[in-house]
Order: sequence, then C-alpha cells, then structure tokens
Amino acid sequence: MGTSEIVWSCIALVISIASFVVAAYFYKWVKALPVANARLEEVGKLIRDGAFTFLKREYRILGLFAAVVMVLIILFFPEPIWHGNAGKNITMAIVYLFGTALSALAGYVGISIATLSNVRAATAAQESIQKSFMAGFRGGAVMGMAVVGTSLAGAALVYLVTQDPEIVMAFSFGASSLALFAKAGGGIFTKTADIAADLTGKVELGIPEDDPRNPAVIADNVGDVAGMGADLFDSNVAAMAATIVIAAAIGQVAFMFAITSMGLLASIAGVFLSRLGPKGSPSRALNGGTYVTCGIFAVLTLIAVLISQFDIRLWLCAMLGMVAGVIIGITSDFFTGDDKKPVAKVAESCQNGPAFTILNGFSYGLLSCLPALLGIGLTALISYKLGEAIGPGYAMMGISTAAIGMLSIIGMIISNDAYGPIVDNARGVAEMAGLGDEVLEITDELDAAGNTAKAITKGFSIGAAGLTVISLLGAFLELVEGAGAQVTFDVMNPMVFFGILVGAAIPAVFSAMLMNGVNRNSQVMVKEIHRQFNSIPGLREGTSQPDYAKCIDISTRGAIRELIPAGLFTILMTLVVGFIGGPEAIGGFLVGNIVTGLLLALLMSNAGGLWDNAKKFVESGNFGGKGSDAHKAAVIGDTVGDPFKDTAGPSINTQITVVSLVSSLAATLFVKFHLF
Amino acid sequence: MGTSEIVWSCIALVISIASFVVAAYFYKWVKALPVANARLEEVGKLIRDGAFTFLKREYRILGLFAAVVMVLIILFFPEPIWHGNAGKNITMAIVYLFGTALSALAGYVGISIATLSNVRAATAAQESIQKSFMAGFRGGAVMGMAVVGTSLAGAALVYLVTQDPEIVMAFSFGASSLALFAKAGGGIFTKTADIAADLTGKVELGIPEDDPRNPAVIADNVGDVAGMGADLFDSNVAAMAATIVIAAAIGQVAFMFAITSMGLLASIAGVFLSRLGPKGSPSRALNGGTYVTCGIFAVLTLIAVLISQFDIRLWLCAMLGMVAGVIIGITSDFFTGDDKKPVAKVAESCQNGPAFTILNGFSYGLLSCLPALLGIGLTALISYKLGEAIGPGYAMMGISTAAIGMLSIIGMIISNDAYGPIVDNARGVAEMAGLGDEVLEITDELDAAGNTAKAITKGFSIGAAGLTVISLLGAFLELVEGAGAQVTFDVMNPMVFFGILVGAAIPAVFSAMLMNGVNRNSQVMVKEIHRQFNSIPGLREGTSQPDYAKCIDISTRGAIRELIPAGLFTILMTLVVGFIGGPEAIGGFLVGNIVTGLLLALLMSNAGGLWDNAKKFVESGNFGGKGSDAHKAAVIGDTVGDPFKDTAGPSINTQITVVSLVSSLAATLFVKFHLF
Repeated sequence: MGTSEIVWSCIALVISIASFVVAAYFYKWVKALPVANARLEEVGKLIRDGAFTFLKREYRILGLFAAVVMVLIILFFPEPIWHGNAGKNITMAIVYLFGTALSALAGYVGISIATLSNVRAATAAQESIQKSFMAGFRGGAVMGMAVVGTSLAGAALVYLVTQDPEIVMAFSFGASSLALFAKAGGGIFTKTADIAADLTGKVELGIPEDDPRNPAVIADNVGDVAGMGADLFDSNVAAMAATIVIAAAIGQVAFMFAITSMGLLASIAGVFLSRLGPKGSPSRALNGGTYVTCGIFAVLTLIAVLISQFDIRLWLCAMLGMVAGVIIGITSDFFTGDDKKPVAKVAESCQNGPAFTILNGFSYGLLSCLPALLGIGLTALISYKLGEAIGPGYAMMGISTAAIGMLSIIGMIISNDAYGPIVDNARGVAEMAGLGDEVLEITDELDAAGNTAKAITKGFSIGAAGLTVISLLGAFLELVEGAGAQVTFDVMNPMVFFGILVGAAIPAVFSAMLMNGVNRNSQVMVKEIHRQFNSIPGLREGTSQPDYAKCIDISTRGAIRELIPAGLFTILMTLVVGFIGGPEAIGGFLVGNIVTGLLLALLMSNAGGLWDNAKKFVESGNFGGKGSDAHKAAVIGDTVGDPFKDTAGPSINTQITVVSLVSSLAATLFVKFHLF
Repeated sequence: MGTSEIVWSCIALVISIASFVVAAYFYKWVKALPVANARLEEVGKLIRDGAFTFLKREYRILGLFAAVVMVLIILFFPEPIWHGNAGKNITMAIVYLFGTALSALAGYVGISIATLSNVRAATAAQESIQKSFMAGFRGGAVMGMAVVGTSLAGAALVYLVTQDPEIVMAFSFGASSLALFAKAGGGIFTKTADIAADLTGKVELGIPEDDPRNPAVIADNVGDVAGMGADLFDSNVAAMAATIVIAAAIGQVAFMFAITSMGLLASIAGVFLSRLGPKGSPSRALNGGTYVTCGIFAVLTLIAVLISQFDIRLWLCAMLGMVAGVIIGITSDFFTGDDKKPVAKVAESCQNGPAFTILNGFSYGLLSCLPALLGIGLTALISYKLGEAIGPGYAMMGISTAAIGMLSIIGMIISNDAYGPIVDNARGVAEMAGLGDEVLEITDELDAAGNTAKAITKGFSIGAAGLTVISLLGAFLELVEGAGAQVTFDVMNPMVFFGILVGAAIPAVFSAMLMNGVNRNSQVMVKEIHRQFNSIPGLREGTSQPDYAKCIDISTRGAIRELIPAGLFTILMTLVVGFIGGPEAIGGFLVGNIVTGLLLALLMSNAGGLWDNAKKFVESGNFGGKGSDAHKAAVIGDTVGDPFKDTAGPSINTQITVVSLVSSLAATLFVKFHLF
C-alpha cells in the first residue's frame, strides 16, 4: 500500500468523522426546536412508533436473511471453503455483516431524524417559511451526512484493514442487499397506505388528504419516511467498491478516496450554506445548494489533484460525471416539472378522460428515456476515451471515476432527497393536528419544492446507477480474469446474447412483483378501512379515533411478505444464469439488466412524477380544478403513477446494483463451476 | 451457383406460383358468395371506398418516400457511386423498388379481399357458423397465400438473377420500409377511429359498438383492415434475406429455399384442411390448422433434407424454431386468454377502479416478458450450438435457420391473422345493416376465436422478429467483414456500449410517437363527432346519415402526418449513430434495439390483449357486467390497451427490422466513413 493511498484513506476517515459531528450538531439543532402542542406531539409519536415497529419487524426478517447469507459466504465465497482460503471466506462474511449493519444503521438514523423533524417543521411553519425550511432541510442533512459519512468510513476502514478489493465487494453487497429490501419494502409499505388512503378518503368519502379520521393516514405518513435514501446509499457504496477493484489493478485507489472525501467535504460546506432567503423560493434554495456544492467540489478536487499529482484527465472524468448528473436531472425536470409543457399537456388530456391521461403520461415517460440514456452513454464513452488516453487499464477507471464524480456530492443530494418526505410529513401532521390553513400553505410550498428537487436527485440516482453498473461490469471482468479465465463479452457469442435476453426480463419481473404486492396489499387495506368506518361508531363524524395500528400492521406484514420473493428472485436468477452459462452469460445478463433496468426506471419515475404534477396542476384550478371530471382522471393517473415512481422505479436501481454485486462475489465460482 | 441452389430456387418459384393459384381460387370462391341485402352492400361499399381512399393517399406519400430513397441508393449505397460500381447501385435501387412494390401489392390484396369477405361472412352467418367461418378464413387465406407467395417468389427471383446477397438486403429493405409505414399508419388510423368511436358512442351516448349513427363507425371498420399482416410479411422477407447473406458464405442457400418452399407447401395444405366441424369451436379450428401445418412442415422438410442431403442438424434448428414459436405463442395465450387466471384477476381488480385495472394489467404485461425472452434466448443459444457443431460459419446459420423455421408456416399464420379483422368487420357490417342478434352472436364467437388465435400468431411474430434481428446482426457483421473491417461487438468496448444505450431508447421513442399520434388524432375526431351530433338534425334519432367520409378523412390525414416522423426518426438515428460511431456502435445499437424492442412489444401486446379480454370477461356478466363500475374501469383499461396492442406493439417488430436492414445496407459506408 503506497503512502498516498494510506494518506487519502485516512483523510477520508477524518472527513467522515467530521460529517458525523455535523450530523450530530444538526440532530441536536433540530431536536431543540419547539413542538406546537400536545396533539402534534401525539400525532408525531404515532408516526414514530409506527415507523419503528415496521423497522423492527423488517430488520428481524432481514437479520435472518443476513445470517443465512453469512453462512453461505463462509461456505462458498469467493471459493468453497474446502478448496481455498478459509480465512478469506470468514473475513468476507464479517465484512458483509458490517455492510448490512451500516445500511441498517442508515435506515435507523433516517427514521429517527425524519420523525423528529416532521413535527418541528410543521411547528416552525407557524412562524415563517424560512424557519420551517431550515427544520426540514437540516433534518434531511442529518440523513445525508450520516449516510455518506458511514459509507465512506466503512469503505475506507475495510480497505485499510484488508487491502483486498474483492472483500470491499462483500462490504458493498452487504450494504446493497439490505438497501434492496429496505427500498422495496419501504416502497410497498408507503404506496399500500397511500393508495388505500387516497381511494377511500379523497375519492369515496370526500375528506381531505391526511384527514385524521382516515385509519390509513398514519401508515401513509410512516411510509413516507421508510426506506428513505436507501437507493442512493447503495449506489454510493457500490460505486466506491467497483472503483476500488478497478483502481487497485493500476494503483489508483488513493485517487478514489481523494475524490470521495473532497465530495463529502463539499457537501458539508453545501449543507451549511443552504438556506432560504427572505424572498427566495425553496426550490431555488435546494437547487442552488446543489450547484454551490458542485462548484466547491470542482475546486477542492482540482486542488487535491494538483497536490497529489493525480492525472488531470481522471479529474476531468469526475467533472464529466458531475455535469452529466446535473444535465440528466435537468432533462427529467423537463418531463416532470409543473411549469413545463409535458405536465400541462397531460393535465389538458385529463379532460378527455383517464385513458388519455394514462396514454399521454406513458408516452412522455417513454420519450424521457432518450436524453437520459444518451447522457449516460456519452458520459461512459467520453470518460472511457479519456481514461484510455492515460494508459492501459485506465479505460474502465475513467468510467468508474465518472460514476464516483456523479455521486461525489451525494451528501448534498441525499439531504435534498430526505428533505422531501420530511416536509411532506410536516404537511400531514399539520393537517392532523389542525394547525390551520396558513401552515398548510407553507408546508405545501415546501413540499412542492421537494418534488421539483426530486427530479434532479432522481437524475443523479439513475445516472449514477447506470455508470456504477457499467463499472461493476468492468470490476466483474477484472475478478473473472483474476480467477484465471480469459473471456470477452462479445454479443455474437450466443452465451452472452442469451444472458442479455434473460437479463432484460429481470427488472420487468422484479417491478411487476413489487407492483402486484402494492396492488394486493392496498386492496386488503381498503377493506380494513371500510370495516372501520362501518363498525366504529362516530368515526365518520370525527368523534372517535380510528384504529391506526391495524393499518400500519397491514402495511408492515404486506411489505415484508412481498419484498422477500422479489429480492430472492433477482439473486437466484443471477446464480442460475451464472452456474448454467458461466461468466460470459453473466456478462450479457448484466448488460440486459442495465438496459431494461434503466429504461424502466426512467419510464416509471418520470411518468409517475408527471402524473403527480399533472394532478397538482389541475388541482390548482386548471381545466376545471378540484372535483371536475378532469380532476378525477388526474387522480387515476396519479394513483397509477404512485407505485411507478415510489415503489418500482427507485427499487430498480438497487436491483441492478445487487445483481452486479452478486455476480462479482460469485465470479470465481462461476469461472470454476458452470454447466456449459 | 450450385445445381442444388438453382433447383431449390426454382422449386420455390413453382410453389409460389401454386400459392398464387390457391389465392386466386379462394378469391373467386369468396367473391361468389352471396351478399344478404342492399343495405349490407352499401355499408360494405362505404368501408371498401374508405379503405382504398386511405391506401391511395398513403401510397402517394410512400411513393415519394421510395423515390427519394431510390435516388439515395443510387448515389450512396452500398458505396458512393463515384467510388465504386455504379451498376450495383442501380441494381440495388431497382430491387429496392421491387421490394416496395411487392409490399404495396400485399397491402392492396389484403384490403381487396378483406372488404369482400367481411360482408359475405356476415351474410353466411345467417345460414350457419360453419359457412361464416369459411368465408372469413378463406378470405384470410387469400392474404396468407398471396403475401407469402409474393415474398418467396420475390426473394428467389432476386437471388436467381443477381446472385448477390447484399442486393437481396435491398429487396428486403424495400419490403420492410413500406411495411413499417403501412403498419404504423394503419395502426394509427385504426385506433384513432376506434378510440373516438368508443368514447363518444359507448361511453357518452350509450349506443352499441358499430352503431351506424356513429360518424366514426366506418372509419373504425376501415382501420381494422388497414396495414393487416404487414409485420409478418416484413419479418418473413427479412429472415430470408438475412439467411441468404449468412448462407451464401457457406454455400447453404439451397437449404434456405428448401425450408421456405416446404413451409409454403405445408401452409397450402393447411389452409385447405382447416375447416370448422359441425360441433367444433372456431378457435380450435384455427389452432388445429396451425398444428396440422406444423406437422406437415416437419415431414416435408425432413424428406427434403434426406433427398438433398442437407445436414440434419440444420433441420433440427428449423424444428426448434417452429416449436419455440408455438411455445411462445402458448405463453402469451396464458397471459391474454380469457379462460386463464391473469384475465380473471385483472377483471376482478376492475371492481377497485381503473387505477388498479391499469396497474394490474401492466404488471402482468411485464411478467409476460420473461417466458418469451427466455424462449427466444434459448432458441438462439441452442440453434447456435447446433450450427457450431456442423462447422465454421454455421453457428449464425443455426440461428437464422431457427428464424426461418419459426416463420416457415407463415402462410398459415397470416391466414389466421387476417381472419381476425375480417370477422371483426363482419360483426361491424352485420350490426350496421341490422342483420339481427343471431348473426351478431355468431360473428362475436368468430371474433373471439380470432382474438385467441392472435395470441399464438403474436408469439410467432415477436419471436420471429427477435430471431430474425439476431440473424440480421450476424448478416451485418458478415457485410462489415466483407467491406474489409475486422470488428467485434464486445460490450466492454465503449462504442458498443454507447450504441446499446442509444439503441435501447429508439423503440421507446418510436412507440411514444405513434401513441401520441393516436392521442392527438382521436381528440380531433372526438370533436368532429360532437360537431356532427350537434349540427346534423335527426342524427341522434337515426333518421339521417352522419358524414362518415369526414371521419375517414381525419384518420387518413392524421395517420399520414404521424407515420412519417416516426419512421424517419428511426432511420435517421441509425445513420447518425453509424456515421458517428462506426460499425461497432451500430452493433451495440442493434442489440439495444432488439432488447428494449422485444420487451416493449411483449409488454404492450400482452397487456393490451389482457385488458381487451378482461373487458369482455366483465361484459359477459362477471363482477357486475355491462354498465357496472367495474365495466367502466375495464373500458378504460381497454382504451389504454388499444394503441398498446394495435398501434405501438406490432409496429415495434417492423421498426427493429428496418433499423437492422438500414444498418446492413449502410454497412460498407459505416466502415469507410465514421467520425470516431
């Protein structure tokens, strides 16, 4: 291990610790904010208890899952224990567990802070929009700082201790496998409750969103904060792991830690600088913070590159990734922004009924794939060429550097991303605690800003997932070659092509399983809500309380029941294809996965966001406004879009990462044992 | 040219001529059938005139397009005329024109016979279901025989005369480019009218489907028969062309003609043997005919292989393709059949409102991709391995043989496929001419059988398109190597990967453009229908006639306006990618196209078919039956599914074929001129 590597790994550890300090500071800052009244306190506690109940039950199952995987790793990975080096298997298993534990911790921190911030942001909204914004944003920043600090510190620690890139993969697999379940489980939980609450509340009973008489309302708010940020967390860890594998072969691991630690430092500066001016708009404040962070990142990394004498072309790759992330974000903003043409067009088509709403939104969703895929493709191409110009082995390093460049400011991105559910929740608790219309107006404005910022963070997360998986493909090849096999992933090789076709089906089936889960569960919950309204006297009039816990229970059980088969399906299919077709089939399998994974993620996220905003556009008084036929059509579009954008879309990113990591972990096995 | 090649090309010509005789015989047979009354005659004439008006205007534009392409071919393809061999350029242009002319002829024959058979099938339904079935089926068989005969004769003639596989590609491109526009144009035409008629008629006015008071009803019926069979026609020609390119390199062109001509012979036998017994079900008669044809094909080709001493392993590839087509068809039947679980489940979810209908159907559509992609992948893999075992150069021959094996009984498949719109039309004219409920019951039953048979023909067409495009990829590589370049399509090559990502976006954008076209046009037509009902006195009461021609005009103009940009977009993107990234980028581009093209085609076709049948399931009295809320939700699902399954889905097949053919045609140019 070179000096530079040790120095930069240690700097990464130090900056990670700094980020924990910042997170702790913000946590205390948020906690010290007042809570308006006892009713608000009570509502907040209901959500908090519900969220932790869900988390506890989810983690119990996932703990079992992790234990089984640990045993499998000890027995088989990277090689059967009776063949190889038992010590390595055991180290890998421990590191895997460490990855899952950190991932679980990130989820825990997220729910803790979100359920503190929501009621405080609602209270602060009684004073001013600025204070409320700060409560929501700094709550999000706790999540951002904690998650990124944890993942960077974890990767640095594992690498410093083991110095074995393959073992870093096990760490990443630990983080990602838990993230997959957390994201999918959270996604099913939240949309089960959301759809059931909307269908019974808004549509059947004509009561407002977040009305406390609705038995599903607490579960709906719990869902908002469950599984938050898991997809970005796992992309970040995976990008680092892939880069370490690729960089280790050419002695450039120091560069990786330099970029990621400067990114975290830039994010720390960014979250401190982000605030809402007296006349500013919250969405500008969020995006402004992102741009400022990008600028700081560019300067810091340039300094680091000059000091440590890294190749400037690698720095260009990182910049390219960052800029591409912003551009992809801006294009998704075009398709989902409420001041842009697509939203207005879809809203207009609502007048012709729900079928047109669906068709129009779906078509725009399909169109939105082109700029993002083009952007990812160009970034990969240019960064590869830049890397290639440096020397042999640097080509894939170029791509993976672009990926970590795109993810570098992820501390800021996660802060923005977590801000959204917090202020959404603030709106919910304000409504339930009856804080009045002025507060609701403020939280609505903050919520809308969260949706707009989401477009950009989504651009980052999908773009980063794409580049990460491409570099994971490179890492897989590296590991396969390390295991002594010489392979190419030529599409004219039928095994590769077979892999591509099967791989292409996986994201489709995975999302179908999640959406069917939402379908099934929300039908169960609708029945439960009907039961409560029919059997609890005084509920309709608001004189008695609904049984919130029952709905939380339905969401929890449903999410846990559905997430396991979907997650196992993808992992098992990877193993089946690998053991049948060997590494070449897996190479194709990963390509097929990336291609349709990105396509479906873009389609579903963007169409879902578009329908959501089209509904809001109608609700703000266009084409007949609330209660009109156009509004009914818009609500149907939004309901279809809900599991698209909040369950399936974001889970697909994690799914393709997990498949790639499983492949890398099993690379040696696939080389040694395959049927054809 | 070897003796065997000449013999089998000539046999192909002879059997093609036999198929023309059969087509002519069936044409006369259908024409001699009686037409019930003057009203029916009149309605039939309205449809016929409308269809020919559309065809004439479409062909005028496409004639212009073909003329421009001819000039471009003369100037640039396969090489700029000032570089190379002017004679070859001119031959290619002429052969291209020949291809378009045959494709145009196929469309003309289709519309001619369909508009004769519809009224006669309706009339025959007054007598018996058997007679009506025969009128519909033999009408379809005219189409099947004429189309397959034409394409086989054309390919044989071009090959016999020029003996240059590259020129056969130009023939195929002529056929496909016209088919692309015919399919897309027909798809937009039909769904514009169908959706507008349903929304105003069934939903707003509560009048039955095909009610003569509805101004869009004639246009709807015209649409049914426009663009019929174009996708299968072009797959067939393309599969033959790809196989000729691959087979020429190893001297196996004779085998190709042996398989295709025996397939046509089997289809001729099959259509003669297909009939509806006194107690048989029409859907069994259709599928039974397909299975019988498969059996005859297996025997005939085995005899041919034994006589001409072809390698038995190639025969196995053909059998594999045929069986895979049937299996893929059966799996799509599972997802769309009205006696299977998915349809019942989606129908059940209609009770919870349209959002669940959409989500559920969409999820099943996603699930349906797995078995089909797995089937295509396995077929490609096994046939490649079988070919590889024969000797060098035979591997891709294995895949292309599987493709022509799957398409071998296409004469029968097109007959079944064309039967559907004819009996659908028969139902329409029977309703308009007031032939009574008994006739409607019979035509409904025949129509339902058409829908079931469609699932199997769709399996064939998507599977065949997949295999064809894989073999076109092989043909492209062959041509690139012929032009002196040594390339591989390794996905770790960033140019290939870039091509994959961009290629993946093309089918998405293409389908979005078509669906947006349908959206826009049907909104225009809905306005026109409202205008007629408001301004024509007595229309609502049925005492005066609507202005059918105006609606036909809207559909025609709209279809022509929308199809050109969508078609040009795909062709131009291919050229842009090729001239920027060269043959490697194109290799990736084709792979991306195939992967998302197949995924979207399967998703859209199957989800669309599922919604259609779920609606029928509700209408047959389940979950509240007609007029219930579940029915309203089911109608919305069906409306979303209409452009999915009848506009975008089937056009995607043709789109990916066209992209592959453009690539092959421009292969030499791409090798010589590219930016990177």
